[in-house]
Amino acid sequence: MRNFEFHCDTKIIFGKDTEALVVDEIKQYGNKVLLVYYDVIKQIGLYDKVVGYLKEAGIEFVELSGVVPNPRLSLVKEGIELCRRENVDLILAVGGGSVIDTAKAIGMGVPYEGDVWDFFLRKAEVKETLPVGVILTVAAAGSETSNCSVITNEETNLKRAFISPLIRPKFSILNPELLYTVPAYHTAAGGVDAMSHIMEKYFTSDVDVDLTDRLSEATLRTIIKYLPKVLEKPDDYNARAQILWASTMAQNGILGVGRGSDGCCHAIAGEVTGLYDTIHGATLAIVTPAWMKYVFDANIPRFAQFAVRVWDVEPDFNDLRATALEGIRRTEEFFKSVGMPVRLSEVGIPEEALEVIAERSGARTPIGAIKTLEVPDVLEILKLAYK
Amino acid sequence: MRNFEFHCDTKIIFGKDTEALVVDEIKQYGNKVLLVYYDVIKQIGLYDKVVGYLKEAGIEFVELSGVVPNPRLSLVKEGIELCRRENVDLILAVGGGSVIDTAKAIGMGVPYEGDVWDFFLRKAEVKETLPVGVILTVAAAGSETSNCSVITNEETNLKRAFISPLIRPKFSILNPELLYTVPAYHTAAGGVDAMSHIMEKYFTSDVDVDLTDRLSEATLRTIIKYLPKVLEKPDDYNARAQILWASTMAQNGILGVGRGSDGCCHAIAGEVTGLYDTIHGATLAIVTPAWMKYVFDANIPRFAQFAVRVWDVEPDFNDLRATALEGIRRTEEFFKSVGMPVRLSEVGIPEEALEVIAERSGARTPIGAIKTLEVPDVLEILKLAYK
Repeated sequence: MRNFEFHCDTKIIFGKDTEALVVDEIKQYGNKVLLVYYDVIKQIGLYDKVVGYLKEAGIEFVELSGVVPNPRLSLVKEGIELCRRENVDLILAVGGGSVIDTAKAIGMGVPYEGDVWDFFLRKAEVKETLPVGVILTVAAAGSETSNCSVITNEETNLKRAFISPLIRPKFSILNPELLYTVPAYHTAAGGVDAMSHIMEKYFTSDVDVDLTDRLSEATLRTIIKYLPKVLEKPDDYNARAQILWASTMAQNGILGVGRGSDGCCHAIAGEVTGLYDTIHGATLAIVTPAWMKYVFDANIPRFAQFAVRVWDVEPDFNDLRATALEGIRRTEEFFKSVGMPVRLSEVGIPEEALEVIAERSGARTPIGAIKTLEVPDVLEILKLAYK
Repeated sequence: MRNFEFHCDTKIIFGKDTEALVVDEIKQYGNKVLLVYYDVIKQIGLYDKVVGYLKEAGIEFVELSGVVPNPRLSLVKEGIELCRRENVDLILAVGGGSVIDTAKAIGMGVPYEGDVWDFFLRKAEVKETLPVGVILTVAAAGSETSNCSVITNEETNLKRAFISPLIRPKFSILNPELLYTVPAYHTAAGGVDAMSHIMEKYFTSDVDVDLTDRLSEATLRTIIKYLPKVLEKPDDYNARAQILWASTMAQNGILGVGRGSDGCCHAIAGEVTGLYDTIHGATLAIVTPAWMKYVFDANIPRFAQFAVRVWDVEPDFNDLRATALEGIRRTEEFFKSVGMPVRLSEVGIPEEALEVIAERSGARTPIGAIKTLEVPDVLEILKLAYK
């Protein structure tokens, strides 16, 4: 196990009707809130509910709506100006990963004199932030406790992540009931995103990581078990709760301590999404099996362990390669079974785009822990993902 | 899953040579430290090392040594007086659970005008504390990130726990190398203590707790795999690291969220230890199998799941009771295999004491989640633990 630091100080409030507790949390940070949200929360009645709590408690607020998936830098900048102008004490994100990542980026930008995009280009380091609180509406990104914000600069079509322990939310309210109305496609994409967060860390070439391996397998198995259940019955409280808690665990950092992690699937999917604005989780469902097929020979024991412990593949001790391949096959089959695309062609990406996408990944390469990837490797993976 | 709050804000610094980082952490809280420790840290050179770091960094310190297993209230009171007299900013615990629990209790007591024992008798609630930092030397109690302090009042022979999120340490430094010199018996007792923390939460009659079940099984399996390895090779870094991180995970709260937990084994073992000052982990190795034998009929499916998933027992679907019993047998065999006693008679407790011990448990009963226990039940368990 490698040396590590772990400090996840987000307060979690989990369960039925917990969104009413938001005012007690806000009051620890001040009395003026920027409310950031997806417009969809108005349709499900959550907007009225939250605004009602704020008004009843005498908490002032200003609003920033219009967050979209793969959230945009321009909205972040608008939020920064709004916070400065209105002297906001806390940013309350009501939504999923895109809303929370927007809120985190605003929080980073408010006290910083330069351009907030500097942080995403690693030209500057965050020293202080405005606090962020969360009411979650989608189980997917795990941004509700993570140290990460992912923003798309729509002028350059670059999608980039920023990581710092300072940007973890101060509190996150997780009520599985708020997820009942998430459409099937987005529920499945969220499940795949959470699985990918775990798999990115699971696929390491480090040894001596047994406990985190087992915790990761436990979390993956939980998502694999319950994702079909919520698709069948969207208001299955327990299934939503299991997946919600699993997707939070997937990205709070605990499953990645003491080990290197791969990260290639998120990096490649990020290039696809940056250019074509595809749904994040669906893009991961396409890229992940292709990446697995391309790299697994570099660490067959790990892929065999994944097959056996996550997918209950019977190990063939005379042919661990076949065991590993069967695990990859089941991963792809699972993604298909929950309604996800598994080929780029299914989401309308033209074959001639593959080289462009691969070329753009050159800004990040070399990437990878299982196998180090350069631009030509990324192109091969994209070809496997296309056919 | 039940509603829950989870907030574990202890900063973990894990790995080789990490104790040198202690001064950076201390300086965030002030410049005057109370150093609380077991005398044994002088024998392993850790005392000189830590004192060297403090002096080099210009951090003032006063000392409180003489902490013993099942730590005493009188020493806590001495520490409180010392902190008040010397205007201490932070209490640095260098040791295991007894040292950390002492430090936490001192931290609670300093700003409180009444008797610190009030907290343990639930006559008062903690409102503020002096911060506690940790350099850990034993993998066992999990007090390095827990919200719990257990102290023995030697005037009344009462051993009692106090729980509050306010008493979690601010930082904990976990270097597996510092554990190389822990004697075999205490290493094994520590492993059993950590296993018991997991099992106390695992044995619930709640349903819909699948993810936490799986995470708990993952952590138990890790301890079961690596405890024999450290006993064979005390300086096996990886095995020490796996057990150390598992014992921290066992008690940071994450394995207990959203569910009721049993707690009977710690409660009964606490009465035994309060009277006879037996080693905590060894006492749990005695009480746990007896408790299991007495209560398992009340929830055979859960004990069968434990047998199959933790101990790899082949399930007999026609006789889940036999499956459950085999899991209990393997638990007891494992404790014996790592050198732990499994009967009260092995640690010198006379048969005539059983009634006294059971009677004293009356101050806590009813206890239990799998099966509610009253004093006569406790007596039956003690009899099973005696023979």
